[in-house]
Amino acid sequence: MGAWREPLVHQTAIPLVVGRVEVLRRAVTILNADLSVVEISTPDEAVPSPTTLPCLSVGENAADDVPAAVASAAGGQAAYDAVVAATRLALDKQVDGIVTGPLNKEALHLAGHPFPGHTELLAELCGVPRTAMMLYLPPGSGDVGSAGLGVVHVTLHMALREVFEKITTESVLDRILLADEMLRRLAVRDSEWEPRVGVCALNPHAGEAGLFGDEESRVIEPAVRESQQRGKLVEGPLPADTLMVRAAAGEFDAVVAMYHDQGHIALKLLDMPRAVNVTLGLPIVRTSVAHGTAFDRAWQGTADPRGMVEAIRTAAHLATVSQARSLLV
Amino acid sequence: MGAWREPLVHQTAIPLVVGRVEVLRRAVTILNADLSVVEISTPDEAVPSPTTLPCLSVGENAADDVPAAVASAAGGQAAYDAVVAATRLALDKQVDGIVTGPLNKEALHLAGHPFPGHTELLAELCGVPRTAMMLYLPPGSGDVGSAGLGVVHVTLHMALREVFEKITTESVLDRILLADEMLRRLAVRDSEWEPRVGVCALNPHAGEAGLFGDEESRVIEPAVRESQQRGKLVEGPLPADTLMVRAAAGEFDAVVAMYHDQGHIALKLLDMPRAVNVTLGLPIVRTSVAHGTAFDRAWQGTADPRGMVEAIRTAAHLATVSQARSLLV
Repeated sequence: MGAWREPLVHQTAIPLVVGRVEVLRRAVTILNADLSVVEISTPDEAVPSPTTLPCLSVGENAADDVPAAVASAAGGQAAYDAVVAATRLALDKQVDGIVTGPLNKEALHLAGHPFPGHTELLAELCGVPRTAMMLYLPPGSGDVGSAGLGVVHVTLHMALREVFEKITTESVLDRILLADEMLRRLAVRDSEWEPRVGVCALNPHAGEAGLFGDEESRVIEPAVRESQQRGKLVEGPLPADTLMVRAAAGEFDAVVAMYHDQGHIALKLLDMPRAVNVTLGLPIVRTSVAHGTAFDRAWQGTADPRGMVEAIRTAAHLATVSQARSLLV
Repeated sequence: MGAWREPLVHQTAIPLVVGRVEVLRRAVTILNADLSVVEISTPDEAVPSPTTLPCLSVGENAADDVPAAVASAAGGQAAYDAVVAATRLALDKQVDGIVTGPLNKEALHLAGHPFPGHTELLAELCGVPRTAMMLYLPPGSGDVGSAGLGVVHVTLHMALREVFEKITTESVLDRILLADEMLRRLAVRDSEWEPRVGVCALNPHAGEAGLFGDEESRVIEPAVRESQQRGKLVEGPLPADTLMVRAAAGEFDAVVAMYHDQGHIALKLLDMPRAVNVTLGLPIVRTSVAHGTAFDRAWQGTADPRGMVEAIRTAAHLATVSQARSLLV
């Protein structure tokens, strides 16, 4: 709601909300905002502005009475219905991309949808076997490069004990190539520009020449070499702590992290409020805020809208690039 | 050498160098500095100033011809001799603490001293079975608290695969108590002040209620509870990525990290040039710069002295507090 009133959002996109009109009107009342929620039945009807919010209604009436700021089956179902509807609109090319807010996993599970999060649900809806999550800082945070800084994770929502068998030369190479491709799309268009990708080691000091583990030489180096042979600007495996400092200083455009905390600690410290979650490997454009539901702050009108503003701007940028590419075909 | 000329260093300490006079004179020539190196034979003879550097000579003449900026056995031996001599001076109470520069592990090993680093060598010299490394940001970096921010590691220089068996309720509790104790010493003295210690989870999202691993409830929570029962202000296990953001904002004075990169990524991103390494569990005061030997920059007079300045100031502060305590006994 805070993001909606930001003029920047309307300069780069024609936004519409997929959800419940009544719930949005409740939010407008809480914020005491000069904003009318207008129900629409197709995306084409949307005429948005900072003071007009077109809402495509989906889901059941039960969602209108969802209690605020607690996990409930009705809330989880409403979120699920909205994601499914928005994804179908994107697959049907009725919208150019989707941007999601945070999803409460407990509510999703209460509603009988046992996905660990959005990404896995989207992968199923889109019928793709593999996706990857990129945490992305748009340009403007500190000294990050002109295309921003993306951190792609080889493993994500699993116990740390489980990551070792998932970190393979194939999965690391896959994430290097996905990172390279996404940064090209995110960059200001310039045919000479090549994203510089840094690959984290798994072990401290990049294994200290085999003293602290051998995954660097055995698993990660072959993936880096293969990507270099394909002409990509890739360096690694590098000790994660110094690589992150160099990336923050603009020496890399993307970092491939081996596990959740390796990437998340860095990006959240760099600029948590502006961080965007970009899903790689989907046939549609999808971005999200990188923060959680924060039920302790929800429905108080105090949420920081910057993450949502950046998520919308990033999705709009990616959609524009995709359209330019389709036109070029 | 850059640090030596910093007046702040001389306001808080009476520094002397334990090493080779000839090598120091070479460094002075490279920097073209107004600095005389004066040989002394006991710490009591030291009359240091920004333009006078007292050097207690140790080691063999061979060290004087050590090639610059490459790992050599003679260089490793010289470093070893200096650390051993300085540690003995501290154990004999001829100096109030020691501050070390970076140590090249390859050179140390070439010289026949197979320690993984300073800390293990110091533990042996001091005859203590357990030490812990704290990365420390003195107050003044961003929004960290008035006592600075310390990150203590439960595991450190080992393969990530090896950390699981080393992370026990006992080792986590030990690091919580060491962190609490060191922050009390580092704080501006105020009997009301209690350090707030945040304990990282091992798994992403702190295990997401058991979905991504169970070390949080099985291993870490019992250590946190025990420390709370001993009256400490401890919170955790918390997801490491958001805990680090909160610590950076001044909500915690110390963080207990489960493994090397979890702590190092955060502290190096927050303020790598000022980071200090403090060894916990030794009978002597010992701090160190947190950076490496950087042979690609060594002997060029371009090194950033801030880490060394902060390491000296931190050691001087700890030594003063220790003396005040001895006087009170």
